[in-house]
Amino acid sequence: MKERGDRLAELVAERELDMLLVTELVNASYLTGFGGTNGACLCGADTRVFFTDFRYTERAEAEVEGWDVVTVVDDWLGGIAERFSGAVGFEDDHMSVRLLKRIEEKAPEGVRMVAAGGAVEQLRRVKDDTELAAIAAAAELADEVWRWSVERGLAGRAEREVAAAAEARIREHGAEPSFPAIVAAGPNGALPHAEPGEREIGAGELVVFDMGAKLDGYCSDGTRTFATGEPGERAREVYETVLAAQAAALDAVTAGVAGEAVDSAAREVIEAAGHGDRFGHGLGHGVGLEVHEAPRLSQRSEDTLSGGEVVTVEPGIYLPGELGVRIEDLVVVTDEGHRNLSGLPKELQLVA
Amino acid sequence: MKERGDRLAELVAERELDMLLVTELVNASYLTGFGGTNGACLCGADTRVFFTDFRYTERAEAEVEGWDVVTVVDDWLGGIAERFSGAVGFEDDHMSVRLLKRIEEKAPEGVRMVAAGGAVEQLRRVKDDTELAAIAAAAELADEVWRWSVERGLAGRAEREVAAAAEARIREHGAEPSFPAIVAAGPNGALPHAEPGEREIGAGELVVFDMGAKLDGYCSDGTRTFATGEPGERAREVYETVLAAQAAALDAVTAGVAGEAVDSAAREVIEAAGHGDRFGHGLGHGVGLEVHEAPRLSQRSEDTLSGGEVVTVEPGIYLPGELGVRIEDLVVVTDEGHRNLSGLPKELQLVA
Repeated sequence: MKERGDRLAELVAERELDMLLVTELVNASYLTGFGGTNGACLCGADTRVFFTDFRYTERAEAEVEGWDVVTVVDDWLGGIAERFSGAVGFEDDHMSVRLLKRIEEKAPEGVRMVAAGGAVEQLRRVKDDTELAAIAAAAELADEVWRWSVERGLAGRAEREVAAAAEARIREHGAEPSFPAIVAAGPNGALPHAEPGEREIGAGELVVFDMGAKLDGYCSDGTRTFATGEPGERAREVYETVLAAQAAALDAVTAGVAGEAVDSAAREVIEAAGHGDRFGHGLGHGVGLEVHEAPRLSQRSEDTLSGGEVVTVEPGIYLPGELGVRIEDLVVVTDEGHRNLSGLPKELQLVA
Repeated sequence: MKERGDRLAELVAERELDMLLVTELVNASYLTGFGGTNGACLCGADTRVFFTDFRYTERAEAEVEGWDVVTVVDDWLGGIAERFSGAVGFEDDHMSVRLLKRIEEKAPEGVRMVAAGGAVEQLRRVKDDTELAAIAAAAELADEVWRWSVERGLAGRAEREVAAAAEARIREHGAEPSFPAIVAAGPNGALPHAEPGEREIGAGELVVFDMGAKLDGYCSDGTRTFATGEPGERAREVYETVLAAQAAALDAVTAGVAGEAVDSAAREVIEAAGHGDRFGHGLGHGVGLEVHEAPRLSQRSEDTLSGGEVVTVEPGIYLPGELGVRIEDLVVVTDEGHRNLSGLPKELQLVA
């Protein structure tokens, strides 16, 4: 992980800081390889310190490469702050107001704390080959669980039961759900963040099935909408619109394009079909150590895509009281376009 | 949940604030009964507003009692801040530096933001009867899972397998683990926060088994140390010391006593047995919506116990490279002493 520290040090210098304090655990883990539950990093031109407590000394010494491991014994904040000098950036988007105040009290004379959140998140956007392999493995595992779920049949089972069985299956594979699975049938499909309920899935219904696995620390995220038998013309028309929107967005994905433009590619198809006001969320988001991370694909996004980023492409149409359709792939951005990590078919599947 | 808002309003007045903004979700849920994933509260003498977004309008209207439900459409922070007046407390122990800055920019002229964390956590310490019943049910469920785990046998199985099976069993009962179960056998038992590993549990070993269930939002937490057959004299001596320390601490629990004094009751027994430097953590902590909450039982605690609080009592002795013993009950503090929610025997159990 030495190279990640070096790249962060460049960002620290660009921001005219002497050091950056990284307190967000997922960021500290990303930088160092540490897998425990308490750690922080201090990074500067000549500074690469990883702090943990006595519970994790051995583990940190085994896992952390390219950073000096320091075990803080009693005074956690004091033990970190005594190494500060000059302008010290902190993660203002994560650090609580109280914690900042306490750190400032412990900092040596002359130290200035500077809001500097987002630096590690910026590094995390572009995945290396090991990370891409981990995400691909998580996506493959989720694909297997979709197939298994559908083989067992959806109609006649409660949404909650289908979701719980899928989550249990993910765990049996040694992974965990990257978020609580969504299974939303019929009118429930129109609620983009429905919690799976006791409602029994009927025949001829559309079923939005949104799921992800977290394997070796990395997440997947995907959605398929299945039909429990022929869902009717209206449902098919909505489905085909979402599918066309998704294809248009996938075509638009490539290094150098704006996140907003990719969102627009899908949104225009849905608007042209007269459902513009029924696609009430952004098109997609980055996925990695967290299931929602940078960059964003939406009308409000200011991100531009780069090769090696992993993003979801998930347009949807939600007709209140009636039905919902969402189709979501997980793709790697490349210089030539994208590589799709989702292996399930996207034509409407009629299932039991 | 009207009464909780009223009690919070009293604390707000005591702190000489006009309003308190509650942004921590678990606190907002406690105050209002809301079960979704986005909500915030504003509480003052004549103010009881619960904010959520369009996804949760219906749910909030169904679940929230005694608070006005406001759906913020576009500008989340602006929609909240426009209702501020005077001195507005915020949860400085939770709110990020960046969020405070953005809220201050949105607040009307003349509003003053004041650090005021911990108010809802203070209310949450004392549980009402419904909460006590929920915690007791979670503890009972966990007891069943311990019995089930031990009946299946521990020796010859990997720690990780025993932990995963117990977690799956908790989920089968419609609950979830309140934290990742700890199963630490033989020398691993000496690491108080060991992650269950691939090591196979041997015969004649002590097995620290720390587990909790979360049911209907409320957590349990408990530990038993089992022996896979006769563990030998040294292990028995350590076990009996921890058991005596736990009994002494339980005897000390009652409304009005200091958290520090309860910790001391256990610590003195362990010190007298010559293991004073091998009990490297506090005696216990409050349990409720979160598995770690106020009050604390430790040498550093400044809390005094009150009737209706639910705390763990969990002394341990950890001999590096050799073995560990921890015995943890979950108890309700009463005016007469305590009521124990843990239903498992505490004499050393020899199991398969």
